[in-house]
Amino acid sequence: MTEQTEPRTDGIDYDPAASSLTGQVDQGVLEELLAIRSSIDNFDATLVYLLAERFKATQRVGHLKAQYNLPAGDPGREASQIKRLRTLADEAHLDPEFAEKFLNFIISEVILHHQAISAFHSTGGETS
Amino acid sequence: MTEQTEPRTDGIDYDPAASSLTGQVDQGVLEELLAIRSSIDNFDATLVYLLAERFKATQRVGHLKAQYNLPAGDPGREASQIKRLRTLADEAHLDPEFAEKFLNFIISEVILHHQAISAFHSTGGETS
Repeated sequence: MTEQTEPRTDGIDYDPAASSLTGQVDQGVLEELLAIRSSIDNFDATLVYLLAERFKATQRVGHLKAQYNLPAGDPGREASQIKRLRTLADEAHLDPEFAEKFLNFIISEVILHHQAISAFHSTGGETS
Repeated sequence: MTEQTEPRTDGIDYDPAASSLTGQVDQGVLEELLAIRSSIDNFDATLVYLLAERFKATQRVGHLKAQYNLPAGDPGREASQIKRLRTLADEAHLDPEFAEKFLNFIISEVILHHQAISAFHSTGGETS
């Protein structure tokens, strides 16, 4: 096998050491920073795949709601989710205020998806 | 053992069937909705614990930056992260626009944390 010296061409041309701090900081500190960032990058990939799976589930809810003409939002469900996530956040040592903001951020996106699915159903599935 | 009829008192008083739709929708449809929501609840708990772990890592970065007097944000790193996450989102069939909005949402919170840590360091660790 010949040595691989070419940059990756399979979609992710990612430099894990990309930083505006290069050359401005001691090499040892930079290495410690890059080691932590490598873990953050792994968490982020996991978050992306997990969010993708969560949206698959909410898309199924969206189709169900559109099929039975149910409203996009469900305030009773949302209040209950927020209360639960705040408690879980507390247990996980995550700021409950942030957990609530996070859930609201996700729910806003989900409601947009539900409305789009509903509009698609009401035009008989035509894209316009 | 006596039967448990009391509600849970261990922190989470959560009704997974909470919905503003109860009584407005066919029982079969409601059951299908609740089954999907049960998966969404599991994804959400996983997200909370994963985010908690991600913030532990960024707190370590925050202390490192404060210790060596480095700026809270790192535009070179952020641009690189966004590019990578958009590609990962594409692979995971998650909207890359949403993935970018999500990362910006998280980074804004992280920068607030870094600034708070920096302020704490610059007052010699006094809380004020």
